[in-house]
Amino acid sequence: MKRIGIVAKRNKPEAIGVTKDLTEWLRQRKIDVYVDEETGRGLDLLFSGTKVNRISGRDLSHHVEVVIVLGGDGTLLSVARLVWTSKTPILGVNLGGLGFLTEIGLEELYPVLERVLGGDFEVDERDVLAVGVLRDGERKAEFTVLNDAVINKGALARIIDLELTIDGRYLTTFRSDGLIISTPTGSTAYNLSAGGPIVYPSLHTVIITPICPHTLTNRPIVIPDHVTVQATLKSREEEVILTLDGQIGFPLTYEDIVEIRSAQGKILLIKSPHRHYFELLREKLKWGER
Amino acid sequence: MKRIGIVAKRNKPEAIGVTKDLTEWLRQRKIDVYVDEETGRGLDLLFSGTKVNRISGRDLSHHVEVVIVLGGDGTLLSVARLVWTSKTPILGVNLGGLGFLTEIGLEELYPVLERVLGGDFEVDERDVLAVGVLRDGERKAEFTVLNDAVINKGALARIIDLELTIDGRYLTTFRSDGLIISTPTGSTAYNLSAGGPIVYPSLHTVIITPICPHTLTNRPIVIPDHVTVQATLKSREEEVILTLDGQIGFPLTYEDIVEIRSAQGKILLIKSPHRHYFELLREKLKWGER
Amino acid sequence: MKRIGIVAKRNKPEAIGVTKDLTEWLRQRKIDVYVDEETGRGLDLLFSGTKVNRISGRDLSHHVEVVIVLGGDGTLLSVARLVWTSKTPILGVNLGGLGFLTEIGLEELYPVLERVLGGDFEVDERDVLAVGVLRDGERKAEFTVLNDAVINKGALARIIDLELTIDGRYLTTFRSDGLIISTPTGSTAYNLSAGGPIVYPSLHTVIITPICPHTLTNRPIVIPDHVTVQATLKSREEEVILTLDGQIGFPLTYEDIVEIRSAQGKILLIKSPHRHYFELLREKLKWGER
Amino acid sequence: MKRIGIVAKRNKPEAIGVTKDLTEWLRQRKIDVYVDEETGRGLDLLFSGTKVNRISGRDLSHHVEVVIVLGGDGTLLSVARLVWTSKTPILGVNLGGLGFLTEIGLEELYPVLERVLGGDFEVDERDVLAVGVLRDGERKAEFTVLNDAVINKGALARIIDLELTIDGRYLTTFRSDGLIISTPTGSTAYNLSAGGPIVYPSLHTVIITPICPHTLTNRPIVIPDHVTVQATLKSREEEVILTLDGQIGFPLTYEDIVEIRSAQGKILLIKSPHRHYFELLREKLKWGER
Repeated sequence: MKRIGIVAKRNKPEAIGVTKDLTEWLRQRKIDVYVDEETGRGLDLLFSGTKVNRISGRDLSHHVEVVIVLGGDGTLLSVARLVWTSKTPILGVNLGGLGFLTEIGLEELYPVLERVLGGDFEVDERDVLAVGVLRDGERKAEFTVLNDAVINKGALARIIDLELTIDGRYLTTFRSDGLIISTPTGSTAYNLSAGGPIVYPSLHTVIITPICPHTLTNRPIVIPDHVTVQATLKSREEEVILTLDGQIGFPLTYEDIVEIRSAQGKILLIKSPHRHYFELLREKLKWGER
Repeated sequence: MKRIGIVAKRNKPEAIGVTKDLTEWLRQRKIDVYVDEETGRGLDLLFSGTKVNRISGRDLSHHVEVVIVLGGDGTLLSVARLVWTSKTPILGVNLGGLGFLTEIGLEELYPVLERVLGGDFEVDERDVLAVGVLRDGERKAEFTVLNDAVINKGALARIIDLELTIDGRYLTTFRSDGLIISTPTGSTAYNLSAGGPIVYPSLHTVIITPICPHTLTNRPIVIPDHVTVQATLKSREEEVILTLDGQIGFPLTYEDIVEIRSAQGKILLIKSPHRHYFELLREKLKWGER
Repeated sequence: MKRIGIVAKRNKPEAIGVTKDLTEWLRQRKIDVYVDEETGRGLDLLFSGTKVNRISGRDLSHHVEVVIVLGGDGTLLSVARLVWTSKTPILGVNLGGLGFLTEIGLEELYPVLERVLGGDFEVDERDVLAVGVLRDGERKAEFTVLNDAVINKGALARIIDLELTIDGRYLTTFRSDGLIISTPTGSTAYNLSAGGPIVYPSLHTVIITPICPHTLTNRPIVIPDHVTVQATLKSREEEVILTLDGQIGFPLTYEDIVEIRSAQGKILLIKSPHRHYFELLREKLKWGER
Repeated sequence: MKRIGIVAKRNKPEAIGVTKDLTEWLRQRKIDVYVDEETGRGLDLLFSGTKVNRISGRDLSHHVEVVIVLGGDGTLLSVARLVWTSKTPILGVNLGGLGFLTEIGLEELYPVLERVLGGDFEVDERDVLAVGVLRDGERKAEFTVLNDAVINKGALARIIDLELTIDGRYLTTFRSDGLIISTPTGSTAYNLSAGGPIVYPSLHTVIITPICPHTLTNRPIVIPDHVTVQATLKSREEEVILTLDGQIGFPLTYEDIVEIRSAQGKILLIKSPHRHYFELLREKLKWGER
């Protein structure tokens, strides 16, 4: 390996500190380090004079062989959306507790990195979803998500109506606070809080979970990911928002269609050599304890 | 009985039509009819020349012996908030299906009214909650609700933190989409969609139900209604709204305290002579069917 | 088509009556009719003298081109377990309401059959699970299920402990009333009552749903069906039973291992030409209604 | 205080060891110690020659001023059923983790006991339920429970039908694995696993929670405790059992009526001076943690 990228969590001095140390550690091993602009600004502020290549987040993954994310699941999600077309593996390092996506703790960083440099690592391929918004027959926006696309009513709005079709076939009209369309990767995020199931990450499925549905029998549904899901907003409530991975918002209006398909591409996550997905479940959901 | 008030659902011509017929029916029985201004405007529009006393919604209940609500649960909730101090009984007539609050169907209206005029009716006393907002030590707003007070994040906001105390004692800090504080009357409304229990209307309790909580063990809690619940907003999210009975919104800011106590007063609902609460449950929740 | 089998619901005279009529209708079309022994006994009792070929349920599917099931989902499940090795399509006719498996109503029987005889029909391939019981290293029993394998405590027993591994990897030890291991086909049966998700029937997955788990974060999990699930009973409770499709029981003892794998084979269900799976969901779960 | 009773958990040498030490500690303070026969047998076995008064569990509470329970919630439940008529306060000491009922840890035993001897303690009054079984018009059995009465199908049985009335008024017929009728005290036990709410212990309510109901809208219901609940078994399944506090079983047959009323009496639990109910909730349900 010759080139490695680093993206640190925004506004988190600790992450910048780790970036600094990591940069030096990699240089000693003759590896070029690239950071995105935001991380670069952080270095300037805290460790001015640090020499490191800067590049836009969008281009980063095309210049490096691995991207190290220092932060939490949120940071990794934002990086994943930039990286997914390049097939560059991501090494997610969590600076706090563990995350479902950032499953490597700070104390494991250097040992795991030694292995990665030696090519001794496995990657998990995670499906991503392509999410489009159609308005009056036009495609107004297009996004990619690793976790979920959520259609949510505003704080003041009452229940909203969303008509759902799968491959053009009518499923039902959900009357609810909103709808979560999740990948297996995202099943342990918002989906779980809304009553959806845990879905093993390698499954090629999409999970549709209504949020606080008015009809109590509207339960979460797991469907194949080779279909096209269309959710049409049938309410004229003032504020309804499509949220991508909990990070990007797009306001919807009456009769907008949110279209979800499997994206052509995968996110490659470097796996912890020490920790299987089931261990993450046990740890994050506190199954081990009484 | 000498004076009866009528409030019709807004923008619903059918409700105005019933108001017209009902007014004539009552006049033949020498009963003075009072309507609120909104219903008056509806009559002007559809049946100009109808003679009927008009009075502000707020004063209505002090001038009449019974208020008839023609609409659905939403209309009744808005009337209830105006009426509750006067102890005037409300007769809720549903123009569509049945409601949990408007349990009298249109076809029963006149027979039930005959009984009411003859004094042959029972009322259900329903508890109401007083909801205040404290900001920087000042009381910024005060509301009364029959169903629920809901603290809800906006569509774009992520999870919000609400620190809850009961009689000054710390319960927990909920990380969730929001929190429902419901009366037994409101238990079959939003509370039920969010996973809360059905609570018999006569119980003197308050139900606290987190909406999509991050911690899966944060389950609905039923507490006595003689306590003071305080929920303090611990997030700086841009949009967090307190909603009263799903109808009135009040924006909250960081460190605002929403304080909920039992109100001194009751809503008196005239019961259907034909339909017990259990029948409503069976019908509304489709228990009778396979 | 030359040979068709019929299996009628046990102890249901109506089903025998339909069998009689159907037999005559098929004969007029020069089709040989075969019934299982139980249905034969029913015909003897109610319509003695009816000439029809009798054959054991186990052999039936090898002699006919289609098996018609007259009854409900329960009858179809019991037939499916006998038929699955032969790849004979099943036509499920429901004599009461609709079932998730018997999606053809009595009124559609003859029109649909006309199509089937003309070869104008589609089949749904449904995965089945092979369920074995290992005791002291020996395979004590082997079953096949279309809906689910359930490990359940007895009425008196308290909570039971089940240690779960997937492909030999430890998942967790469930402390609960029991565990449901369901196919997508079975997801709308017991699994749904226990809080599990609806899973589209064509997905190659297995759903693991704990029944009333002591640990509230033990949520339903959807996993790939190419794995081997082993559940080891870690309690010495007197009565713990493995139930197959809700119909066959097998008592388990301490340290018994229930092993579940995808079976080599499929159940072929003849689809209703009029009714998609989503319509079944809407109808059975009353989604269409308010 | 002159006389204190001790009941130790069965077959738990550690509990007998604590009994031995406690007995000596109390004697030094001139207090007579009484143990039930089972605890006496334990002492004989492990510390033969220990002098202590023995008395039947049923009579124990009438001879002492306080009963100390050394074990877990299960032991306390079994003692509570013997003690409740005498109004003798119970001090529940948990030898493992904490329990919802045994909220005093071993390390707090002596400090708390010092206070109790000095009269410096508070008690929590907990409601109990009287549970009767009516068969052919005759009262076949009568029980008292502190946590819950559960009607449960056997492991092999399929769904059972239970017709429920409240004060003689029909509620619905539950089709489910069974039914939990719980006190507020029992709300955090089996009820919580089956989806029921947490109910504050001082509330005079009963919680009715169906176990895995076939009808998904059959949700937990909280009702006043001054009513009479009757559940009539409408299935002929072979094995249906009424279980009291998870400890005593009584087989039910077709048309048996299980009748539940508030019992005339209370269980008095000595409160931990250090730990409020909310702390128990946070600790047992792991709310404090991320």
